[in-house]
Amino acid sequence: MQLLSTVRAFSRAGYSVALIARRQSSLDALSEEIKSSGGDAASFCVPSYAPGQFSPTFSDIRSQFPASQYSLRAALFNVGYAVWKPFLEVTPEEVQESLSTNVAAAFSFSREAILQFKQNTVDAANPNRGTLIFTGATASMRGNTMTSAFSIGKFGARALSQSLAKEFGKDDIHAIIDGLVILISSRSRNNDCEGKAPPSGLNPESIAQSYLYLVNQEKSAWTWELDLRPAHEKW
Amino acid sequence: MQLLSTVRAFSRAGYSVALIARRQSSLDALSEEIKSSGGDAASFCVPSYAPGQFSPTFSDIRSQFPASQYSLRAALFNVGYAVWKPFLEVTPEEVQESLSTNVAAAFSFSREAILQFKQNTVDAANPNRGTLIFTGATASMRGNTMTSAFSIGKFGARALSQSLAKEFGKDDIHAIIDGLVILISSRSRNNDCEGKAPPSGLNPESIAQSYLYLVNQEKSAWTWELDLRPAHEKW
Amino acid sequence: MQLLSTVRAFSRAGYSVALIARRQSSLDALSEEIKSSGGDAASFCVPSYAPGQFSPTFSDIRSQFPASQYSLRAALFNVGYAVWKPFLEVTPEEVQESLSTNVAAAFSFSREAILQFKQNTVDAANPNRGTLIFTGATASMRGNTMTSAFSIGKFGARALSQSLAKEFGKDDIHAIIDGLVILISSRSRNNDCEGKAPPSGLNPESIAQSYLYLVNQEKSAWTWELDLRPAHEKW
Amino acid sequence: MQLLSTVRAFSRAGYSVALIARRQSSLDALSEEIKSSGGDAASFCVPSYAPGQFSPTFSDIRSQFPASQYSLRAALFNVGYAVWKPFLEVTPEEVQESLSTNVAAAFSFSREAILQFKQNTVDAANPNRGTLIFTGATASMRGNTMTSAFSIGKFGARALSQSLAKEFGKDDIHAIIDGLVILISSRSRNNDCEGKAPPSGLNPESIAQSYLYLVNQEKSAWTWELDLRPAHEKW
Repeated sequence: MQLLSTVRAFSRAGYSVALIARRQSSLDALSEEIKSSGGDAASFCVPSYAPGQFSPTFSDIRSQFPASQYSLRAALFNVGYAVWKPFLEVTPEEVQESLSTNVAAAFSFSREAILQFKQNTVDAANPNRGTLIFTGATASMRGNTMTSAFSIGKFGARALSQSLAKEFGKDDIHAIIDGLVILISSRSRNNDCEGKAPPSGLNPESIAQSYLYLVNQEKSAWTWELDLRPAHEKW
Repeated sequence: MQLLSTVRAFSRAGYSVALIARRQSSLDALSEEIKSSGGDAASFCVPSYAPGQFSPTFSDIRSQFPASQYSLRAALFNVGYAVWKPFLEVTPEEVQESLSTNVAAAFSFSREAILQFKQNTVDAANPNRGTLIFTGATASMRGNTMTSAFSIGKFGARALSQSLAKEFGKDDIHAIIDGLVILISSRSRNNDCEGKAPPSGLNPESIAQSYLYLVNQEKSAWTWELDLRPAHEKW
Repeated sequence: MQLLSTVRAFSRAGYSVALIARRQSSLDALSEEIKSSGGDAASFCVPSYAPGQFSPTFSDIRSQFPASQYSLRAALFNVGYAVWKPFLEVTPEEVQESLSTNVAAAFSFSREAILQFKQNTVDAANPNRGTLIFTGATASMRGNTMTSAFSIGKFGARALSQSLAKEFGKDDIHAIIDGLVILISSRSRNNDCEGKAPPSGLNPESIAQSYLYLVNQEKSAWTWELDLRPAHEKW
Repeated sequence: MQLLSTVRAFSRAGYSVALIARRQSSLDALSEEIKSSGGDAASFCVPSYAPGQFSPTFSDIRSQFPASQYSLRAALFNVGYAVWKPFLEVTPEEVQESLSTNVAAAFSFSREAILQFKQNTVDAANPNRGTLIFTGATASMRGNTMTSAFSIGKFGARALSQSLAKEFGKDDIHAIIDGLVILISSRSRNNDCEGKAPPSGLNPESIAQSYLYLVNQEKSAWTWELDLRPAHEKW
């Protein structure tokens, strides 16, 4: 499971991990597993991805820590609403859901992450103020038959990532989109926040290692978009 | 005025032109001008860009013609909601408006155009079943400081254009996005559908000629994205 | 034949056309045909594509006209050396030929064209000082299996086109690469300068019309790369 | 120094490192330094970058090891010939040198590396047959004023990298180009093979870590092009 590998990798690297989902119960097993192996993780609920909903959740996370120990350094937006359909069969609701979940929710989430990053200090031990990663997909990079409804949302997330990278690079805040084919936590698909294995055969552990590599990039040599694909794929 | 040049160019090339806007009155002067110079143009109202709203308007246009004479061959989606702001100042309403106007409205409009294109016959005189053009912007191609809210919408329109091009090329339907910096008909900016001069100094007549060139491209040699920029711009 | 369509289109548009090849005889029939239909064309020989070889040929062309009537306005570099082979079978000679013909010859040719463009005046009738077009290929845009030797050359020509566009745009000189799959005049393939039909099924007349469109673009709205592909191609 | 950081990083990761240059003496200090800190490194001479010249050097390297212990797993082509000049001042010799050093030499080097990779076995400990990395530059990605002579070469190397990635991915051979602004070992600039600090301020240690990350990527999630840029750069 992609989410599990990523949480484990960051936990092993010394991070406390907060998991956010619309249905918290689905994440409890994951945070328990991390804690049982000596890591620090907790799960949090967000009532919806509508504007403003992430703000109390981020406050809630912050309140779990003594102020002197809290410093949000990495945030991963790993949510995606995927739909593959011929254009003429796409419903208005699917258009709306793709834009709301893939773009508007990413916008709200980014706002909270960046507000918290801006409060971080930068020093030798923490040269980057914060790293914000969006999980992309092939549909972030090009439209295709069957992807009209999906790619309008994934292109939007890529636009957001580029805009944030340009606007906040000078503040040592690093925004990245990768090209993974990962699809997690879609309400319409599984009504919970449990991660699904990436459909393309990407190894979850490899993805997790790539996220850690990006978070550890030193700011003289940042990557803005990272495309990960299987060696044998015709791309 | 960009819209005027385009309507004139297509009128001179023998097309009847239907103009659609949320406030019809703003287009009446334009259609009158075309008619007074011997062309055929009429303006139509769409109550909003919400899903389903374009359908009766397209029916209304069709009903103006004897069935034997009607054949929609080119459709231009020239609407855009533009906003340039630092990310942290963007409101949820601006995010929503960018996605609704730049993407969801383009989706609805495309549906009606493609449904009508599919009824066209293809022959020596009309080798292309139909051509659908979206007006793009630099913000369709890359995000930047100040463009987070705008580029999420323009990237979405580009994704739509690519997806339609791939899905409907086999049906001889040509979907194109250009890279013009044109911003027309935003409710929040001017509350009507009157076109504004393109801010970048692109000559409206040049843009109109480029649209005609695209519509006249023969299907063995189609262009999918056309980037138009001033010679002296640093791009 | 691609070259024939292009020459005819420019001739009909009022241009005198000079044809250059390493084996002039192959072009004589073409220039005769243009002259017999009332156009003005002549063929010229270049001994090789090595550095400096184009210079006397351009002088020779110029000397055919009264000085007051000469003004080079458009130049098309339509030469290409194509080779499709598995990487391990490519010979050093093929690498060298791809770089010499596709890149170094384009560099020399561009130098002569730009030196002559710079002598042109710009006025209402001739708003562009000159237009330089390179014939590209899919291999200009991406490498693939079988294209290692070919794409190293075609990428180079694209780099040249971009660099010239950026450097000379301010002088109203327009450099463009298109994405056509056209392969003409390779010494190793046919030992003469006669054009071959484009292998991809692009209609030669359509390509010619696209070249004319590019030459006629007004400088507030120039295109830097034009990708032409068949409607039904999976690209 | 970029080369030093990279050699140290691979040495610390357990690799024996062979350094190749046209002037071996310049590398001797570097290989001595690695050996004095307990690593394994040696320097080798290649008489020129002309076709066929790398082959005896690769044989020479191989002969230093017992056959059972030799397995070439990573190869870095870090050579570059850089020239920034207005187009009309570029000499034919500079065009030739850019194509020979940046492209033709990369082609020859790749041939030797791939031939050796193909002899490797793949198993759990070594899931990738081999990784071939080309050092790129901004000029690999786009042409600009002053870069006509440089970018024709760097585009060619990118074309080579893409072609090899597509052709040899199925063999578990990974070819990558990065977007570093690193320029090393140009005969015309410093007449030896000693690396220069990257001009853009990229931290050499960061680049070395990125190379190691790429070599360690597991083949279900490979990256084909990696763009590294300073956080504060306007790109």
